[in-house]
Amino acid sequence: MSDKLSILETFTNAYPENNYRITHTNSEFTSVCPKTGHPDFATMILEYIPDQLCVELKSLKLYFQSYRNDGIFYESVTNKILEDLVTACKPRYMKMTAEFGVRGGISSVIEAEYLNPEFENSLDIF
Amino acid sequence: MSDKLSILETFTNAYPENNYRITHTNSEFTSVCPKTGHPDFATMILEYIPDQLCVELKSLKLYFQSYRNDGIFYESVTNKILEDLVTACKPRYMKMTAEFGVRGGISSVIEAEYLNPEFENSLDIF
Amino acid sequence: MSDKLSILETFTNAYPENNYRITHTNSEFTSVCPKTGHPDFATMILEYIPDQLCVELKSLKLYFQSYRNDGIFYESVTNKILEDLVTACKPRYMKMTAEFGVRGGISSVIEAEYLNPEFENSLDIF
Amino acid sequence: MSDKLSILETFTNAYPENNYRITHTNSEFTSVCPKTGHPDFATMILEYIPDQLCVELKSLKLYFQSYRNDGIFYESVTNKILEDLVTACKPRYMKMTAEFGVRGGISSVIEAEYLNPEFENSLDIF
Amino acid sequence: MSDKLSILETFTNAYPENNYRITHTNSEFTSVCPKTGHPDFATMILEYIPDQLCVELKSLKLYFQSYRNDGIFYESVTNKILEDLVTACKPRYMKMTAEFGVRGGISSVIEAEYLNPEFENSLDIF
Amino acid sequence: MSDKLSILETFTNAYPENNYRITHTNSEFTSVCPKTGHPDFATMILEYIPDQLCVELKSLKLYFQSYRNDGIFYESVTNKILEDLVTACKPRYMKMTAEFGVRGGISSVIEAEYLNPEFENSLDIF
Amino acid sequence: MSDKLSILETFTNAYPENNYRITHTNSEFTSVCPKTGHPDFATMILEYIPDQLCVELKSLKLYFQSYRNDGIFYESVTNKILEDLVTACKPRYMKMTAEFGVRGGISSVIEAEYLNPEFENSLDIF
Amino acid sequence: MSDKLSILETFTNAYPENNYRITHTNSEFTSVCPKTGHPDFATMILEYIPDQLCVELKSLKLYFQSYRNDGIFYESVTNKILEDLVTACKPRYMKMTAEFGVRGGISSVIEAEYLNPEFENSLDIF
Amino acid sequence: MSDKLSILETFTNAYPENNYRITHTNSEFTSVCPKTGHPDFATMILEYIPDQLCVELKSLKLYFQSYRNDGIFYESVTNKILEDLVTACKPRYMKMTAEFGVRGGISSVIEAEYLNPEFENSLDIF
Amino acid sequence: MSDKLSILETFTNAYPENNYRITHTNSEFTSVCPKTGHPDFATMILEYIPDQLCVELKSLKLYFQSYRNDGIFYESVTNKILEDLVTACKPRYMKMTAEFGVRGGISSVIEAEYLNPEFENSLDIF
Repeated sequence: MSDKLSILETFTNAYPENNYRITHTNSEFTSVCPKTGHPDFATMILEYIPDQLCVELKSLKLYFQSYRNDGIFYESVTNKILEDLVTACKPRYMKMTAEFGVRGGISSVIEAEYLNPEFENSLDIF
Repeated sequence: MSDKLSILETFTNAYPENNYRITHTNSEFTSVCPKTGHPDFATMILEYIPDQLCVELKSLKLYFQSYRNDGIFYESVTNKILEDLVTACKPRYMKMTAEFGVRGGISSVIEAEYLNPEFENSLDIF
Repeated sequence: MSDKLSILETFTNAYPENNYRITHTNSEFTSVCPKTGHPDFATMILEYIPDQLCVELKSLKLYFQSYRNDGIFYESVTNKILEDLVTACKPRYMKMTAEFGVRGGISSVIEAEYLNPEFENSLDIF
Repeated sequence: MSDKLSILETFTNAYPENNYRITHTNSEFTSVCPKTGHPDFATMILEYIPDQLCVELKSLKLYFQSYRNDGIFYESVTNKILEDLVTACKPRYMKMTAEFGVRGGISSVIEAEYLNPEFENSLDIF
Repeated sequence: MSDKLSILETFTNAYPENNYRITHTNSEFTSVCPKTGHPDFATMILEYIPDQLCVELKSLKLYFQSYRNDGIFYESVTNKILEDLVTACKPRYMKMTAEFGVRGGISSVIEAEYLNPEFENSLDIF
Repeated sequence: MSDKLSILETFTNAYPENNYRITHTNSEFTSVCPKTGHPDFATMILEYIPDQLCVELKSLKLYFQSYRNDGIFYESVTNKILEDLVTACKPRYMKMTAEFGVRGGISSVIEAEYLNPEFENSLDIF
Repeated sequence: MSDKLSILETFTNAYPENNYRITHTNSEFTSVCPKTGHPDFATMILEYIPDQLCVELKSLKLYFQSYRNDGIFYESVTNKILEDLVTACKPRYMKMTAEFGVRGGISSVIEAEYLNPEFENSLDIF
Repeated sequence: MSDKLSILETFTNAYPENNYRITHTNSEFTSVCPKTGHPDFATMILEYIPDQLCVELKSLKLYFQSYRNDGIFYESVTNKILEDLVTACKPRYMKMTAEFGVRGGISSVIEAEYLNPEFENSLDIF
Repeated sequence: MSDKLSILETFTNAYPENNYRITHTNSEFTSVCPKTGHPDFATMILEYIPDQLCVELKSLKLYFQSYRNDGIFYESVTNKILEDLVTACKPRYMKMTAEFGVRGGISSVIEAEYLNPEFENSLDIF
Repeated sequence: MSDKLSILETFTNAYPENNYRITHTNSEFTSVCPKTGHPDFATMILEYIPDQLCVELKSLKLYFQSYRNDGIFYESVTNKILEDLVTACKPRYMKMTAEFGVRGGISSVIEAEYLNPEFENSLDIF
């Protein structure tokens, strides 16, 4: 999984003087359960406040698709994607929400956040 | 009911440096009303911020199923399940919400929370 | 399962000169999968045009509850319930619809009908 | 219950040359269960094709309200209301639908129709 | 009310060889109850299959607005509008549906149709 | 109305060490407008954090039903019910929400809260 | 427009010791655009915490109806109604929300609040 | 507009022995009102039963986009698109539905169908 | 793709004297676009009236999963799955509906049916 | 794009003594993707608290329409529109939300805010 990060491309944020929020929702995420080998399906919601970089949309789609045949747990895939996107974009704030379908009568949501310590006190209007 | 706790299995949280939230929703919970003997039906929503342990999903399903033929009141089953899951997972924060179907024209929701005193001041970004 | 039929009670239809339709929807049906031993959950919808008898509502509830710990397949439980209710009510027309929850990413609906041959040509206004 | 019919008022249909449909939906119907003494609640839907008379709306409201403290079964109240409205309006076609709330986990709908034999062959565009 | 008809404008149907359907929905219709003087509010749905003429949209809006301060009953306004639009457009088929808001706990829908006898046998694919 | 309070029954809260929330929603409340004599219909939502006592569900249903033929205004019935339930349960916090149906084109909601001064500073995790 | 205020009637708040909230929603408001002369339609939502006076519901309906043929802009009508209702009721807190229908592809909402300075520090439990 | 037809590409239907239905829904159609010059927006729904040819999806997207700056009426654009797609695909059956947004308080739907006379009697299982 | 058929397992229909309908809905189908290599996502709805055989649910799940990395067009995958299921179950009637997600602003639905000629005249009560 | 600002017209806020909120929602925004040349579609939501000026609604519609054939990225168009509207209206607070349709399985929302430093401490009741 080490070269997934290289799929992500960024472009320069043209409005860095503003704390604005970007949300990309992908309802077509799939990976594989490492325990049962059965596919998992999720809606992935990425929210962030960019600093100098924004994630390029097509590369984000390819990055999500790269998990298609990977065996990875709910909690891990959500945190791993957050880590990669934080590394790629160095945002002021970022949140990943993964909403997984029903398994054994139970649906699951994982939500992980990142707050850039440098901007902790300047994001308050959101 | 004493051995229900042993049904719950946990696994090590791979991202303990993060305060992230996990929500498991089971819309297929049933127990028995201790007063009338009639079955009760509920949607059970477990939200938590893990510390070192996460609850294993299949064991959670079996744990919920173990109440199927138990006679237990709305308020008790919600608090009892919260207690067991806190004991098993030792989370930073946990909430159980039980949404019961209509009885005598009245539907009921019970919500109980647990906040680990050790983490009281470090959960604020949620 | 042979004595389930005796749970059902009926009362005399006070308006037999009319072809009118009765629909009872029970969203709290549960039985057990005979293969896995796991509980199944369904919404059961009974529609019928009574002839001389109507099914008594409380006995219908008890009849549905009697399947709680029976191991029985989707297709069988739907047809079996239709059979029992036709035997008990001798209706002009009857339909059972069973809407089962998600298993392995798949939800299922079973619909079975009965048309009393004696009334085949007199139900056309519905 | 014999004087309920006198509550209903009608006015002359100004467009009898047309087969048009009128639907009045009252979501605030309540009567009493003759068995348990507990109140029942329903949405009442009256559809009809008028002939020479239309039912006056305020009198219809008062007619529905007159059942408030009557003990009467689901099937009976629906057919009785249809009978009274057919008597009062002499319509070409009429249908009463009564949608009752959840009792013992079961909600119920009763639908009864009347087709004026005189108009059997002239209502086909609907 | 006699000059309302003159508000309606039409344009030539460019596809008279086709039986196609046009539906215009106006959720902002208001008139006045002739009995109480209080305003009535409705959603008006006009469906038709044009022959040689289509109703012009802006004139239709003005026509609907012309009822704003008229005292007129539910049944009458629906049939009257159908009559005027049939006169103006000479359609193959036309239907007016008027969905009125809640009065005394009762909401009402009036549906009136017109079928041009000349086209009775040629509209069957709809 | 003085003996309504005696309808309410309570049971001992088995988890008083926890601030947990109970919500009972009754969509079948009806009383009478003291001005017009016409029935009013509401959905009643009771939320509370129990201290030593919980309200027993069947007695709550009977308590709500006792208003069926009482003439009482929206604002009064909501506050009166809150008062009675506070007297009966002595909760840490309680809220009554009454959502009334449309009258004269206007629907109404009344929300009244009670905060037990003793617990003012200990309810903050909710 | 000067005598609109006189339409509003009030009654004495029977529970002034409580900060409770009243919400009246009128989905049938209409006025006229002063620029185009075309009618405007809105849902009007009045929320308030009464002090000594409550607005009487029927007079509120008549007050809203009095704007039917007035030419007035979105922003003005919302603030004007808030002003009149504050004058009539002298509430602790009041909010008017006006949700206008689509014009030129754009729908509009205007929200205006009033906070009685005398109660600024005592409304915090809401 | 004469070369729009050349944008449409087709591929060979691999299952011509079957009468199966294909539905493509494009919620991002826009053209220009020839009268006012303002843009119109619609959801375009194409349903058809292919004979020997299916329309290629990307070419369909480009075909819809080609109307972006064309001035054309609701009725015309719907019939024109149906004509072009019938010419390109020679289907057994085809229907175009165009759902236009609100203009002057009125939303509009245009539905046009084509039935290939050769297949008139063989499409009955749909 | 030739050995996909062997994944499907069946069991004996216990109620062949009845024409009853079975519907299995899988909202987690994914395959690959043969043109772009990008994944496609669909909800697959299988409806059928069994004759002597029913499809076993777990094998159906595995059969759907077997398309995960196959490159196949919308129209082909729907018809191919229908063919395989008809071969495996020899039903009286069967329908496959595939609802694909948005591509280039266009969502697509493919519906294909099979009617067993032997039963053409005996399925009319559905 | 330099002369877009001149399209926007304003009028004097008649209630500057109040902090009230105005929201205009345009569900018919379209521009062009500068990378692919394909059209983008969005719902644009403008919320603001006016100071001395309000934006005139028709000019706002024309301003939004002026982007129809401009090639501009999601992030840029949202911030650019916010900038122009802040320049034109000099509001106390303003927020632009742009909700873009699905591209490559991903839908996107951009939210940007402006807070007038002069009013930072006086907007707290919202």
